[in-house]
Amino acid sequence: MTKYSFLDDYSEGCHPHILEAMITSNFDQEKAYGQDTHSLQAKAKIKAHLKNNAASIFFVASGTLANLIIIASLLRPHEAVIAPSRGHIAGPEAGAIEALGHKILTVESPDGKLTPDQIEGVLQNHAHVPHMVKPRLIYVSNATETGRIYSKAELKALSAFCQENALLFMLDGARLGSALASHDNDVTLADLSDLTDIFWLGGTKAGALIGEAIIINNWELAEEFEIHIKQRGGLLAKSRLLGLQFNILFENDLFFEAAKFANSQAQKLSKAFLEKGYTLLSPTQANQVFPIVPNTLVARLEKDFDFYIWQSREEDQSVLRLVTAWATDPTQVEAFIQAL
Amino acid sequence: MTKYSFLDDYSEGCHPHILEAMITSNFDQEKAYGQDTHSLQAKAKIKAHLKNNAASIFFVASGTLANLIIIASLLRPHEAVIAPSRGHIAGPEAGAIEALGHKILTVESPDGKLTPDQIEGVLQNHAHVPHMVKPRLIYVSNATETGRIYSKAELKALSAFCQENALLFMLDGARLGSALASHDNDVTLADLSDLTDIFWLGGTKAGALIGEAIIINNWELAEEFEIHIKQRGGLLAKSRLLGLQFNILFENDLFFEAAKFANSQAQKLSKAFLEKGYTLLSPTQANQVFPIVPNTLVARLEKDFDFYIWQSREEDQSVLRLVTAWATDPTQVEAFIQAL
Amino acid sequence: MTKYSFLDDYSEGCHPHILEAMITSNFDQEKAYGQDTHSLQAKAKIKAHLKNNAASIFFVASGTLANLIIIASLLRPHEAVIAPSRGHIAGPEAGAIEALGHKILTVESPDGKLTPDQIEGVLQNHAHVPHMVKPRLIYVSNATETGRIYSKAELKALSAFCQENALLFMLDGARLGSALASHDNDVTLADLSDLTDIFWLGGTKAGALIGEAIIINNWELAEEFEIHIKQRGGLLAKSRLLGLQFNILFENDLFFEAAKFANSQAQKLSKAFLEKGYTLLSPTQANQVFPIVPNTLVARLEKDFDFYIWQSREEDQSVLRLVTAWATDPTQVEAFIQAL
Amino acid sequence: MTKYSFLDDYSEGCHPHILEAMITSNFDQEKAYGQDTHSLQAKAKIKAHLKNNAASIFFVASGTLANLIIIASLLRPHEAVIAPSRGHIAGPEAGAIEALGHKILTVESPDGKLTPDQIEGVLQNHAHVPHMVKPRLIYVSNATETGRIYSKAELKALSAFCQENALLFMLDGARLGSALASHDNDVTLADLSDLTDIFWLGGTKAGALIGEAIIINNWELAEEFEIHIKQRGGLLAKSRLLGLQFNILFENDLFFEAAKFANSQAQKLSKAFLEKGYTLLSPTQANQVFPIVPNTLVARLEKDFDFYIWQSREEDQSVLRLVTAWATDPTQVEAFIQAL
Repeated sequence: MTKYSFLDDYSEGCHPHILEAMITSNFDQEKAYGQDTHSLQAKAKIKAHLKNNAASIFFVASGTLANLIIIASLLRPHEAVIAPSRGHIAGPEAGAIEALGHKILTVESPDGKLTPDQIEGVLQNHAHVPHMVKPRLIYVSNATETGRIYSKAELKALSAFCQENALLFMLDGARLGSALASHDNDVTLADLSDLTDIFWLGGTKAGALIGEAIIINNWELAEEFEIHIKQRGGLLAKSRLLGLQFNILFENDLFFEAAKFANSQAQKLSKAFLEKGYTLLSPTQANQVFPIVPNTLVARLEKDFDFYIWQSREEDQSVLRLVTAWATDPTQVEAFIQAL
Repeated sequence: MTKYSFLDDYSEGCHPHILEAMITSNFDQEKAYGQDTHSLQAKAKIKAHLKNNAASIFFVASGTLANLIIIASLLRPHEAVIAPSRGHIAGPEAGAIEALGHKILTVESPDGKLTPDQIEGVLQNHAHVPHMVKPRLIYVSNATETGRIYSKAELKALSAFCQENALLFMLDGARLGSALASHDNDVTLADLSDLTDIFWLGGTKAGALIGEAIIINNWELAEEFEIHIKQRGGLLAKSRLLGLQFNILFENDLFFEAAKFANSQAQKLSKAFLEKGYTLLSPTQANQVFPIVPNTLVARLEKDFDFYIWQSREEDQSVLRLVTAWATDPTQVEAFIQAL
Repeated sequence: MTKYSFLDDYSEGCHPHILEAMITSNFDQEKAYGQDTHSLQAKAKIKAHLKNNAASIFFVASGTLANLIIIASLLRPHEAVIAPSRGHIAGPEAGAIEALGHKILTVESPDGKLTPDQIEGVLQNHAHVPHMVKPRLIYVSNATETGRIYSKAELKALSAFCQENALLFMLDGARLGSALASHDNDVTLADLSDLTDIFWLGGTKAGALIGEAIIINNWELAEEFEIHIKQRGGLLAKSRLLGLQFNILFENDLFFEAAKFANSQAQKLSKAFLEKGYTLLSPTQANQVFPIVPNTLVARLEKDFDFYIWQSREEDQSVLRLVTAWATDPTQVEAFIQAL
Repeated sequence: MTKYSFLDDYSEGCHPHILEAMITSNFDQEKAYGQDTHSLQAKAKIKAHLKNNAASIFFVASGTLANLIIIASLLRPHEAVIAPSRGHIAGPEAGAIEALGHKILTVESPDGKLTPDQIEGVLQNHAHVPHMVKPRLIYVSNATETGRIYSKAELKALSAFCQENALLFMLDGARLGSALASHDNDVTLADLSDLTDIFWLGGTKAGALIGEAIIINNWELAEEFEIHIKQRGGLLAKSRLLGLQFNILFENDLFFEAAKFANSQAQKLSKAFLEKGYTLLSPTQANQVFPIVPNTLVARLEKDFDFYIWQSREEDQSVLRLVTAWATDPTQVEAFIQAL
């Protein structure tokens, strides 16, 4: 790629510490299918953050696999998921959840976040038993697909509502690193372990080559989870590949440090747009920036940089999406700001 | 692991050439979801072996994913797969194919291979339309789960039978490297591209950390295949990881050389057993050895080596499974033969 | 039930002609699973209306079975249905289509009808291959769930759009009798056979005890359809029950006459509301009437009549749904109008 | 049909008492979807036989629907059914259970019955977690597909084994009337309610036009069962049709009397074959007779009678299947015996 890319947070390989550990351990013989020493160590490190003895941890290769395996394991055929209409499972996962047999009940939400009131509305619309599916699982993303994060109070309200209404609560953490490293954040992994039934934290966008860690906060839900992983093709023979990466990411808080760095680059971009007088689609809380700019500027920026045009707007304006990562080159951020 | 392991062909990491290429290219920005330069180069290299302009190639993370995505893409709901009862999809994939909605019609087969006669029998048992599923797809593994390989004549006969009976033909190549590198082999990748509708070749057991290459020999079957990959969670953001590994494996025939080495180690073990007067469950054609030995010997060998007890037999005998790989240490093979 | 019911069009048994034929033929021995003489005769009679030699006809027990078997037979796993958000498959079928593995892409539509423009919008939102499901099938109901009917011009426009965009077109005819018997209607069964790929016409709401007739207008789509019926539990041993009812309904146009009668009763109710100065949610085209009335009137009418409260509105108003049928008692219609 | 048919037990319509009740109640307005008075009365009558306050009853249209709805409601995606290889779900239901996503683990069984030993063997073969599906549900038919019945001791042993191994136990009663009316039978409906988790009793083969009664013996399993019925297309608007038939069948023990009559006709046929010196594939316990006869006799009998050729055997012999029913004409049984 000849231009510098702010397209996404998965354009580069992996954090160099991971490569180093792969080299060192390459010829060690390890057990397969999740029993390797790297996986066991990685799980212990993540678990130390959770403060929850009942929690179990499983690694899978992709975010869509994480979402579909979790939902396959949680729902019976007549049960449905409630998700924001922008939720990743509702769109760009190519019908993965419906392919399991489950309906997704979507709620329009400008910032991509769910509230108890919205869920309450869905419950009321599905009270006509036995003609309607039974809403059973709440799905949220943190950070959301438009870069917003949940506060602890918001998650507590959702969790309490789920408890009162016999709903399960899952959180898609493809960008959880960036969310937890946000200057606005007041949530910890221990909070998530306390407030959700299942959540997962993304390695792919946080410095790994591949891999997402699924955290089940209730041992009853975890009991036969590995059969679900195997059935959906998610159980890797060389599970050492996933385990090693999380083992490194959770050594010396690399996972959080790398996310903090990504966020700091997004803040620079965000401030530069604001200083030039442009507005943002939504405030920059994590590693995504959504400026609203004239198309003449877009054309100029596109000469040297790649980014995603999120929306076309009237009056020759566009909303851009710029994404930073653990590997973002600060000199390119400066160059972009200069080009602005 | 304190003992040396002949448990499987996925105990080590990956071929050092792969690690080197990962280091060199780590900070290159690459497109995601299969559009990276490594994947494009790897596909070109594999395609050169196929001599089939209509072929398409896709990479996925695991063998179960390869099998389930292929079958999801090929079958309509009323259609079924015919497989040997030992076929990987029929047992240790935890119901992955049935989870898609498809029945597997199994055939007892001592060597794990299918013949046109066996398939003919299944067709006759399913003629009672509309009460029975419609057999539509033939599944074989090469090498089989018990280490046997197909000759070109056998594959031609299956292919011709499929053509005459409007059946599709797929081949699971988890151990295809070892099969093609067998001293008994007369099949090429070009033959497979000619004789099957879809086959896949395994990277995980051939020196990669992860990854299987699906080869669709008919462009009509390939048209929307990537949506199936995405829907089942198989589309990696950092597809570079899969592409790079196949790009290296198909450079200078590393894929075949590594398999030849693995087979040569299996031959050494095999010959040692035969020379000591033991018999084999089946002749050693690829990288698996199935000796029948007394349990007293098993106990002795288990002191320093790990292997799988395939079957318990009467008269204090057991069938062992010993597996060699690209990474097998020849000095450990010698040590094992000494222990024998 | 002590009050007279306008709740639905399935409160009574069946047309007396059907009972008579059941008595006459009860002890005849008939073939099972669709090969009975009643079914064969009924299919011939319906086919005479279609003017399409390529058409095939199948009977199933319920509307949800009809919808789910049709969709299971038409779609591959990565393909989706486009439907109005009020469409029956999108709500009160308890997730039957998602349970097959398919996403329903819904379009907001005040009158419950779909237009090419709406479909075009969905196609544009799903162009991001391979991340999105592939829209493949258009679903409409005639009459719609709010009592509206399609004109021939509207169906032609949808059919042409489907042809141009490689989409399949299905029509749910749970209330097709009432639609075709509407004073506003200009569509025939032959038109539907010409313009759709598959449609079904409802027996349950048209004087039968049970039964819907699925009409496939293209022999290629019909080829293995009976296996799908069997697989979903829709193939009745005593298919005579379904065949006999359609055989009687299509004798001397009973199907159309009964629907005309039902519509005429709905017109009487509709006019009465209008004459009293009330407005309707939508014009009365078939056998459903949706008056908007004050809650004081609702309370008065509820003393002697049952009906469905479709919506609660502000200012103490409600939208009612009144349904008439082949069996509606005209003296009760008069009594209702008096009570008004 | 010009010949008299012993092909099956669903060649005729329904018991005349049912037709009479349909005529009498035809114009009564009834609630839909299972809330009609006929269904409520029928459930009360069946429940009186069960002696189990926790039992719930649901009616569906076909046996395949009964089996697939029950299994959909009971199993999670990683769980499988154990069934005899001759079990109806394993063959002539066109893959209905796999279409739900579940594997059927079959056991070879000459008489079509399951034993704890056979189940134990399957459990042992599926101990390799997480690579194998989890056996969770036991499926038996009574009478079996080859006309054998279970004793109370056999059912008790299965039930105890299921309890000890955390397995669920279901019984397919398509021909339960004939089983319970057998001269060999020592089982009651109350026993079945005590020993199984779910069973169903067939109306179609017992004098109804359509309909099977599902009996759930544990209220926890019944809680949301109606949503499953709706989702699979099994919830009839005019549920009165199913309710009325069971209401009549369970009035004055008509269900049992009709089955006793059917069995008595089978006994006449059975004895006639034995008296002529022919052997039977299996003893005649219910309403199916499986004589082994020379093909010359088959040709002679086929002139005036229809029956099913169950198996072709060597030495010009065939196994026939003759089925009797509530509606079998005794004079035709005599005529058949004469022809013999």
